[in-house]
Amino acid sequence: MDTSVKNKIKSIVGQENYFDSFEDRLVYSYDGTPVIQQMPEAVVFPQDEEQISKILDLANNVKFNVVPRGAGTGLSGGSVPTENSIVIVMTKWNKILEIDEKNLTATVQPGVVTGVLQKEVEKLGLFYPPDPGSLNVCTIGGNVANNAGGLRGLKYGVTKNYVLGVEMILPDGKFLRTGGKNMKDVAGYNLRDFIVGSEGTLGIITKVLLKLIPKPTKSITILAYFDKLTDSAQAVSDIIAAKITPAMMEFLDNTTINCVEDYTKIGLPRNVEALLLIEVDGRGSEVKEDAETVKFILKKNKALAVREAFDEAQANILKTARRSAFSALARRMPTTILEDATVPRSELPVMIEKIVKASKMFDVMIGNFGHAGDGNLHPTALTDEREQKELDKAHRAFNYIFDEAVKLGGTITGEHGTGLAKKQFLEKVTGPVGLDMMMRIKKAIDVNNILNPGKIFSLAPKCEGALPKKREQIKNFNEQSSE
Amino acid sequence: MDTSVKNKIKSIVGQENYFDSFEDRLVYSYDGTPVIQQMPEAVVFPQDEEQISKILDLANNVKFNVVPRGAGTGLSGGSVPTENSIVIVMTKWNKILEIDEKNLTATVQPGVVTGVLQKEVEKLGLFYPPDPGSLNVCTIGGNVANNAGGLRGLKYGVTKNYVLGVEMILPDGKFLRTGGKNMKDVAGYNLRDFIVGSEGTLGIITKVLLKLIPKPTKSITILAYFDKLTDSAQAVSDIIAAKITPAMMEFLDNTTINCVEDYTKIGLPRNVEALLLIEVDGRGSEVKEDAETVKFILKKNKALAVREAFDEAQANILKTARRSAFSALARRMPTTILEDATVPRSELPVMIEKIVKASKMFDVMIGNFGHAGDGNLHPTALTDEREQKELDKAHRAFNYIFDEAVKLGGTITGEHGTGLAKKQFLEKVTGPVGLDMMMRIKKAIDVNNILNPGKIFSLAPKCEGALPKKREQIKNFNEQSSE
Repeated sequence: MDTSVKNKIKSIVGQENYFDSFEDRLVYSYDGTPVIQQMPEAVVFPQDEEQISKILDLANNVKFNVVPRGAGTGLSGGSVPTENSIVIVMTKWNKILEIDEKNLTATVQPGVVTGVLQKEVEKLGLFYPPDPGSLNVCTIGGNVANNAGGLRGLKYGVTKNYVLGVEMILPDGKFLRTGGKNMKDVAGYNLRDFIVGSEGTLGIITKVLLKLIPKPTKSITILAYFDKLTDSAQAVSDIIAAKITPAMMEFLDNTTINCVEDYTKIGLPRNVEALLLIEVDGRGSEVKEDAETVKFILKKNKALAVREAFDEAQANILKTARRSAFSALARRMPTTILEDATVPRSELPVMIEKIVKASKMFDVMIGNFGHAGDGNLHPTALTDEREQKELDKAHRAFNYIFDEAVKLGGTITGEHGTGLAKKQFLEKVTGPVGLDMMMRIKKAIDVNNILNPGKIFSLAPKCEGALPKKREQIKNFNEQSSE
Repeated sequence: MDTSVKNKIKSIVGQENYFDSFEDRLVYSYDGTPVIQQMPEAVVFPQDEEQISKILDLANNVKFNVVPRGAGTGLSGGSVPTENSIVIVMTKWNKILEIDEKNLTATVQPGVVTGVLQKEVEKLGLFYPPDPGSLNVCTIGGNVANNAGGLRGLKYGVTKNYVLGVEMILPDGKFLRTGGKNMKDVAGYNLRDFIVGSEGTLGIITKVLLKLIPKPTKSITILAYFDKLTDSAQAVSDIIAAKITPAMMEFLDNTTINCVEDYTKIGLPRNVEALLLIEVDGRGSEVKEDAETVKFILKKNKALAVREAFDEAQANILKTARRSAFSALARRMPTTILEDATVPRSELPVMIEKIVKASKMFDVMIGNFGHAGDGNLHPTALTDEREQKELDKAHRAFNYIFDEAVKLGGTITGEHGTGLAKKQFLEKVTGPVGLDMMMRIKKAIDVNNILNPGKIFSLAPKCEGALPKKREQIKNFNEQSSE
């Protein structure tokens, strides 16, 4: 990128919000996704909508790429820079602008941390259900861009079910406001829901209006262990078939249980094949009734032990342990590739078997856990990216896992998004017609393909050139530093 | 349209599925929307996806328009033919293909009547909540095309919250399948939710996969009368603020009450200003508790009488009476223009006042009823389209009502769609940037603008030529018939 262009960008955002040293660019050269990385040309922290608009204008005029970014917790490379790009960081837009108790809504800037918002609304007896594993770090803007899920998706749905309105700067620099505080709105096309999950390719989110619901007042958390994986999967199916909708129904396999126990030391048994962590919630007597039915079904499916958390503190310890699964697995090996293949709930037992098979067939250590009630699993390869052979084995295993998920009517990604990491698999799910439709829409909205290009799909073969490189730069940097 | 083109269409669908007599075309020249009408060139009942694809292919090649249609209960003219168009009628695609009790889904053809599906799934203890007023006539395909709402939207959401997958033929004749039985899926752009509510402008729906939920086992229906409109509106706000989410919370004003009473003779008091019909439901003790809280709030807001339906039969009588509001109002005057201006719930009292004001200011009889809990009102002008002066007054009143709704952060349509009837108002809600974005997407998907053109927006000034004419043809036809 020309110095003159860099100077123009600097003059838009101001010297103090512009960074292009090697170290600054390095920090924003990757996100939560393993293996992929690319250095941006510069990193900027815009102060208002007008600055974002001017940057996008400039990008269209002199042709550079713009990659928006929140906390960078994404697991599909959606915020990894592309070639010839600048990163727009939105984390400082972190104000909760309004909590409207009459309409049960919250208006927030995109950089608000999800867990912070949850705590604020819960003080008022309200509830913002979407709870991605990274909720204490990730931001609402990123959640909206990825349509983030979480543990409570089964009963409460995902981010899109709570987005009432979005303000954003479109790729051509124009300001769009869509949606509002109306519970129903069918005026024109549903742009709002289309923007949710578009991974920063259709605009840069500057404000989000969220729906809140009354907080459930009662909950019961139940823990069960199983000698056999298949029994735990059958229990999950039976609970759904019994017309109970738990707030969460989480599954951990033996590898994950052991890693979590190493990490948290809360006394999980190390020799069981599976664990289910189930929470039922609500406001009335049905909570207790549901808990009893759940316990009955667990025992019928040969659960070794079925325990009810005796208070909220204990329930929270269990839920926190579950949330630590990714971090716990990540300690085991240098590289952790966490995926989110998802299948119809009835296919969960089959999919769990297929993942076990993939681990053996391709000789990769795969821990498996996830949102069993959703059919949303997190098979996690524990590998070492420094060994290309090991990495190749992991990729082959996931290729097999995605194929099997799609054969079962499933999808390659339940909640992480497509980004860079999974775009090669996208057509398996969308088919050529769906993929073509997506690409046509991107072209119609981002004529010069300057906003987060190459994510989700590549508009032209040349864009493959923008595929991120491996972590060479980090190695080089480390070598430089130690010299 | 050339005879040779008509013959080609006939050869695609077969003689027995092709109709072009004056009478046949007349029957499909209008839908549930007052005033607007346009004769199609022909009416066809395609037998399979391939026939639909071939018709669209032909339409692109020789340039005619294709207007898809279900039961035609729409209230915004979405299925009224355009100039030089054929109507594709999907009502014979009326099979429920599968009810999957393991995954809680239903797979249906688009012509399945909504109420029929509801009854079938309820036999299995399952629930399909969206319940537009026309549920005993309207079809799922139309519901999806319009993102239909209904009485239960407050607690259970609208059609889009239950659409898991769609199969459709795109404007270029290609077959698209999007979505599936997964509870979470973020692979690529969210085409599925974008198709919902696109009013037949992006494809012809051939199959729908719907989400079902367990049927709530308990419900209590409460009826309350008010001397003052404003008291009833305040009661609605207070119930929401008390963090209760009723399954329905319906409002009827004095005009509507009297029309409903004329029609149903169930003993509604004729001299009250407003009536609220509230249903709380669930599976536990919270149902009874919520009912008590609701009754307390109603009384606090000066309800004249608060009654609880003593059994399901009585509750059904009340709900059926409410559902008859449109039909009841329609008996009063030759022309009934039912609108669906929607505002944030907190603005409901203001909006109700504005509608009363519009009625006086423009000298139009306006009955008002609707989904108070959603802020989704149905101001209904009772007028006579044979008098242009009367019609103009009604249009001016609605112009005012839409302006006021938008000023309050509301929208011009909560559940009926934009269609032809409201496209002139669309930009009030979307702004020029949102409208432009919608039009770009339509152009990208329907390059020749052959599928339901001129609905929602006009792509080019020339399309205004396709604006439907008034009911001249009917008059002519009646005159012809009586001759």
